[in-house]
Amino acid sequence: MTILDAAPKNESSSVDDLPSLRRAIRQGRWTSHTSGAAQDRVQGNVVILPEREANDFLRFCQRNPKPCPVLAVSEPGDPMLPTLGQDINICTDVPMYRVWRDGELVEERADITALWREDLVTFVIGCSFSFEQALMEAGLRLRHVEQGKNVAMYRSNLPTQAAGPFHGPMVVSMRPMKAADAIRAVQVTSRFPQVHGAPVHLGDPALIGIHDLAAPDYGDAVEVLPDELPVFWACGVTPQAAIRQARPPLCITHAPGAMLITDLFNSQLASF
Amino acid sequence: MTILDAAPKNESSSVDDLPSLRRAIRQGRWTSHTSGAAQDRVQGNVVILPEREANDFLRFCQRNPKPCPVLAVSEPGDPMLPTLGQDINICTDVPMYRVWRDGELVEERADITALWREDLVTFVIGCSFSFEQALMEAGLRLRHVEQGKNVAMYRSNLPTQAAGPFHGPMVVSMRPMKAADAIRAVQVTSRFPQVHGAPVHLGDPALIGIHDLAAPDYGDAVEVLPDELPVFWACGVTPQAAIRQARPPLCITHAPGAMLITDLFNSQLASF
Repeated sequence: MTILDAAPKNESSSVDDLPSLRRAIRQGRWTSHTSGAAQDRVQGNVVILPEREANDFLRFCQRNPKPCPVLAVSEPGDPMLPTLGQDINICTDVPMYRVWRDGELVEERADITALWREDLVTFVIGCSFSFEQALMEAGLRLRHVEQGKNVAMYRSNLPTQAAGPFHGPMVVSMRPMKAADAIRAVQVTSRFPQVHGAPVHLGDPALIGIHDLAAPDYGDAVEVLPDELPVFWACGVTPQAAIRQARPPLCITHAPGAMLITDLFNSQLASF
Repeated sequence: MTILDAAPKNESSSVDDLPSLRRAIRQGRWTSHTSGAAQDRVQGNVVILPEREANDFLRFCQRNPKPCPVLAVSEPGDPMLPTLGQDINICTDVPMYRVWRDGELVEERADITALWREDLVTFVIGCSFSFEQALMEAGLRLRHVEQGKNVAMYRSNLPTQAAGPFHGPMVVSMRPMKAADAIRAVQVTSRFPQVHGAPVHLGDPALIGIHDLAAPDYGDAVEVLPDELPVFWACGVTPQAAIRQARPPLCITHAPGAMLITDLFNSQLASF
């Protein structure tokens, strides 16, 4: 039995098991994705940059809050994130990290203590796992979840506002829905501006520069039925794409799907 | 110069001019439509029925709150509507009435004092004028307003829940919008459940039984551009269609567009 098999599978157990889940991640016994783990807790995308690039990146996030909603920014050199949890240490508490040098992926590792420096700044950016929980609790069905797939993601032609070296198109995630469910999904996700908020587009994909829904740029393709609309949300992959453009000398991120699990509850992010 | 030409044309003057506007209506000097008059005040659809049919109709409204959001129900035989305004008298305060007998229109008149009976019950039902003001204040453009047209309305195949003799399909109003504006419109109108609330459909009209947008069942056709979606809201014409089906011995309504103007402000209807 792997650690993943032993993971809490439902909401009630996941709440109780957060300490043991975090311990497993910290000790390197959980190095896999976190989809469905502790699913009522806020999970976050992680970006770690040297202070110089961090200043530009924070401006990039501020100018592009839909794809880059910042949940927390650390003090330079401080690996702790006290606003997200009592004892979160960014050097150990992400299941799997990716290390980028000059925009190129050079390494995956489960612990970055050896790489930590006094000038590093951590960004935690909201993740669609939070609003997907809210959508499912509202009774909406998510086909990629039901089919055990990653969500389909596309580079759109929607612009971002550049800041320093950070720029690039908005990446969007797509979920197919009937019109009435799409309207309900706008209502539900509008309550969660810190995890991408309301959709940025729905209907004809060509209007935002997407010409083949069957060929996503990231993630897995999912069928759109004749009585459904594709509904598009701003996606947390957008900052990663901007980082690849900016080519900072060092950048550390989470590995795709292996997110930072915080102490916060998704329900705490609801704006009303 | 007609009374309509003399009507207050903008929000600030319309607030101040409500007493003179109501006096003009009450004295039969204003018998025309009320679109754009006192535009920050709640206007309402009016349905007056004998108590026997009123009981069924109230159940019909309760079961179909999106097309039939009830703002007020009078006491039987009482022409006053104290929850909507200090001195509103339903016998005189609608610019133009329609009198229906056994489901057939028999008369239009500007005063129904002579027809009043001790068993009549008045219903005031929310009207899209309220949410259209909110949409325009949010910066959205409404083509039918800009072109001075009535909104396009269609009999859909969306069902209503029957109550006694009241039944029939949901009538919907349609406004064309770009996708991002449609998403914003869902957000804005969701705040106003008492005036039809969020849309009931968007995108392909055929999915709700509408096969030719250029041929509305009520109101005026309006163009839908290639980069737009038709967005559909439940419409206050639905109860009138149900009344025509039910054929009550007597029914009095407002004439189309000539609404009851209440003392309430549209902003008071916002749910958050």
